[in-house]
Amino acid sequence: MPNPIEFYFDFSSPYGYIASHEIDAIAAKYGREAIWRPFLLGVAFKATGGVPLPSIPIKGPYHVRDFARSAKFHGVEYRQPTVFPIATVAPARAFYWLDGKDPKRAKDLARALYRAYFVDDLDISNADNAIAVSAKSGLNAAEVRAGISDPAVKDRTKAEVDKALARGAFGSPYIVIDGECFWGSDRLDQIDRWLATGGW
Amino acid sequence: MPNPIEFYFDFSSPYGYIASHEIDAIAAKYGREAIWRPFLLGVAFKATGGVPLPSIPIKGPYHVRDFARSAKFHGVEYRQPTVFPIATVAPARAFYWLDGKDPKRAKDLARALYRAYFVDDLDISNADNAIAVSAKSGLNAAEVRAGISDPAVKDRTKAEVDKALARGAFGSPYIVIDGECFWGSDRLDQIDRWLATGGW
Repeated sequence: MPNPIEFYFDFSSPYGYIASHEIDAIAAKYGREAIWRPFLLGVAFKATGGVPLPSIPIKGPYHVRDFARSAKFHGVEYRQPTVFPIATVAPARAFYWLDGKDPKRAKDLARALYRAYFVDDLDISNADNAIAVSAKSGLNAAEVRAGISDPAVKDRTKAEVDKALARGAFGSPYIVIDGECFWGSDRLDQIDRWLATGGW
Repeated sequence: MPNPIEFYFDFSSPYGYIASHEIDAIAAKYGREAIWRPFLLGVAFKATGGVPLPSIPIKGPYHVRDFARSAKFHGVEYRQPTVFPIATVAPARAFYWLDGKDPKRAKDLARALYRAYFVDDLDISNADNAIAVSAKSGLNAAEVRAGISDPAVKDRTKAEVDKALARGAFGSPYIVIDGECFWGSDRLDQIDRWLATGGW
């Protein structure tokens, strides 16, 4: 079996959201699995001196425009969230709680959380909102709430964020194929060719 | 006649170099002209707080790898310059000196300067080297030298840099189509579709 594709993303990242629509199909096309690994851009920025895009003069307004334009280019529904960016530790913990039990359902939850934030404009940094999205996805709200607060889930989340940073994830999405790293939804075309050709 | 496509780039920008190989063909496909406008990223960075990519922890090494990988993806010959990045006021002035007389030849000179830097590893921040490249391209070395020092050429260069910044050019390449702005060689696919469809 070929190695899985590692898909690192932040729940507050428009480009991560865009890539989440395509990564599984690209992986499947080449007999690979994509494993989803939410991480926290805020923590990564401490290592690189990065700052959230909208806070950057001139570049910030460009990117707000580019988020929507790139989403449409990829055929992905998108609405600029009212509160942006957000801290995403609550949705990340909900994901890892479920991933420990059922990775496939965890991906579905990640999709629902992304959609709640980037289509329904729901602030998923709020744990209550993240839990409400989980419940709407068929999970038990009380179990999700307990899971988010579980020290083992918190530890797992922290360990996964550390692993993402150790992989070099300085932005989102950050996609690793057999050790080769690609940053951005605008690298999906290179990823496709990399998988097809084995690299260049 | 449709508006020309404005192609802003810095002579030290690998992604600008990559885009320089495709922008004229994309424009011509849609009956447009591409006008080339070198500017100075160092000046733009003062407005945005930007810094040269290689100086950024973690992100820097990623990009050095991505420069070469993206060049190859686009079928463009590339060698990481020994001195990188460089100040590009000398090649920019040589370009604008010639652009004032013959825009088509100025594009050819820009291609030769880019190639000297990104294939032959010649430090074109050095005026003598920029002049040598110009001479190799069939221009008169003494005339180029006088042109680079001409106050009118210096003023034109400064005015063009100011215009690029006023357009919002915070990175290279920065491409403007009927007021719509695209940053990066990884937006060439969006540019192609934008020109084909009139936008979305």
